[in-house]
Amino acid sequence: MPNIRILTETDLRNVITLDTDAIACIENAFLALATKDVRMPPILRLDIDDHNGEVDVKTAYVPGLDSFAIKISPGFFDNPKLGLPSVNGLMNLFSAKTGLLEAVMLDNGYLTDVRTAAAGGVAAKHLARKDAKHAAIFGAGVQAKLQLKALKLVRGITSATIWARDMAKAELCAAACASELGLSVTATPDGRAAAQDADIIVTTTPAREPVLLSDWVKPGTHITAMGSDAEHKNEIDPALIGRADLYVCDSLSQCRILGELHHAIDARIIKADRTFSELGQVIAGSASGRTSDDAITVADLTGTGVQDTAIATLARARCDAAKAGTEITS
Amino acid sequence: MPNIRILTETDLRNVITLDTDAIACIENAFLALATKDVRMPPILRLDIDDHNGEVDVKTAYVPGLDSFAIKISPGFFDNPKLGLPSVNGLMNLFSAKTGLLEAVMLDNGYLTDVRTAAAGGVAAKHLARKDAKHAAIFGAGVQAKLQLKALKLVRGITSATIWARDMAKAELCAAACASELGLSVTATPDGRAAAQDADIIVTTTPAREPVLLSDWVKPGTHITAMGSDAEHKNEIDPALIGRADLYVCDSLSQCRILGELHHAIDARIIKADRTFSELGQVIAGSASGRTSDDAITVADLTGTGVQDTAIATLARARCDAAKAGTEITS
Repeated sequence: MPNIRILTETDLRNVITLDTDAIACIENAFLALATKDVRMPPILRLDIDDHNGEVDVKTAYVPGLDSFAIKISPGFFDNPKLGLPSVNGLMNLFSAKTGLLEAVMLDNGYLTDVRTAAAGGVAAKHLARKDAKHAAIFGAGVQAKLQLKALKLVRGITSATIWARDMAKAELCAAACASELGLSVTATPDGRAAAQDADIIVTTTPAREPVLLSDWVKPGTHITAMGSDAEHKNEIDPALIGRADLYVCDSLSQCRILGELHHAIDARIIKADRTFSELGQVIAGSASGRTSDDAITVADLTGTGVQDTAIATLARARCDAAKAGTEITS
Repeated sequence: MPNIRILTETDLRNVITLDTDAIACIENAFLALATKDVRMPPILRLDIDDHNGEVDVKTAYVPGLDSFAIKISPGFFDNPKLGLPSVNGLMNLFSAKTGLLEAVMLDNGYLTDVRTAAAGGVAAKHLARKDAKHAAIFGAGVQAKLQLKALKLVRGITSATIWARDMAKAELCAAACASELGLSVTATPDGRAAAQDADIIVTTTPAREPVLLSDWVKPGTHITAMGSDAEHKNEIDPALIGRADLYVCDSLSQCRILGELHHAIDARIIKADRTFSELGQVIAGSASGRTSDDAITVADLTGTGVQDTAIATLARARCDAAKAGTEITS
């Protein structure tokens, strides 16, 4: 049996970062989803209510990639009381030709963070106004910073506003973004104020009730909602889906169940069987993107297995080149 | 972050074997499935037709067990041409309280082999005649030997017949079983002859058409079908499900989709909504088992996540005690 490479979070952070390569990697993943015979089964979800926990397992096979990932993401929301992170997990990488395990990526969710933020960058690249300068980020966690960084990679962003329920967290996040990204970043507790000045809005919260209302959004804005990855999560006003000139999702089948779309369907603003373009189709040019500077565009991102396979395959290639990690024979 | 234990197949073989402890472990797992608020989501299945491959992901949370496993089983059926095994895989073990990864079990399918055979033992223990002496095993692979070994752990088996399409393989398997298990074991290419002498029949093949016909089976026989774990697999004549005095499955929801039951439903021998007892209910005493020496009983085993969580949790405890494996910090 071939050796298996065990890679730690440090190994993976040394070779993968949120940069234009990561954006290109995820852009290609979405393109493949639209143009190749990708196999992406529904998410396996295990709920452990006894401990306020949930586990998602995602995977996809992409023709042309040598490997496929099976990504396991546990989220246990009482962990912070124990001094542990809520979200962690790993990716297992297998040969697409033989199914043999090639690498165990003990990333504690790092690769998921990168591929999730990269998807926000890809969405903005294809849907936001070319002259977008000011971003509003809803939420003040890891994705708030990374999503802003991803926007800066695809648009000439010069300033940003961070909104969070907890103003102290918003201020800390704004300060970190300003110093790390070299932008002018302010914090606000006023969602309307944050939204109405923005060319691009990214919602990155675990909200169960909308944090972004429809009438706060000015014409021409692009909105990416990336916080909803479960039925009960809901960041944006369902009316905004109805109002948007263009709604695009990462995976239509997933968004009908887990995404913002699901809430718009529940609210009877959108018919359950209405079809929408996927981001990969916009990238491929088989579906249209933004058609005017005044259009409101929405990208609904629930996170897909194809992103996991793509980022893990890139990480493995780079770890191979760097001879990173430990080899185990089993 | 706590350390993660990396365990090789050798580490796991050193602490887990198919014995009465393994049978008790799997018996308890089925009992829990019937009596506790077990969470066992549907299997995630990824098909990679380009390379004649398939991947199953199984899991379950069992209240009272400290850990849960996420088991990944790839099967790539062109591998033997490359000198590689068709089936392999690993188990990832997580804390049920925090979701943190505790162990990576690089077992290449070994723990699956043990828990699958143990389930056959549990089924025979609760469904076969107490005086069962002669077994017929259909198939000549790893499970043929292990299922016979499991039967010997629960009944006074003295002799067995191995049937396989390929008589040379049947003879090799019979010789191995005879020497390893101390039984009188013969091989035959005649399925009818194998079946009609048996007190217990276990089918262990990847057949897509029945290898065991209904009228070959004498009254009083117990049959365990364990080869079918996918829609297209079918080992036993659907008529035998209709004829059986008692049909028991490992998981009714799974067997309606993947098991022998699925083919009996397709053949309109069984109504799609008819309910049947699960093995755990028979163990718990909340459903009846064998009611007479003449009854024909059938156990339909598709393989469940609760078995994976149970065997992996036992393996981890024993590896901890033996200080087996390698610790990694990530």
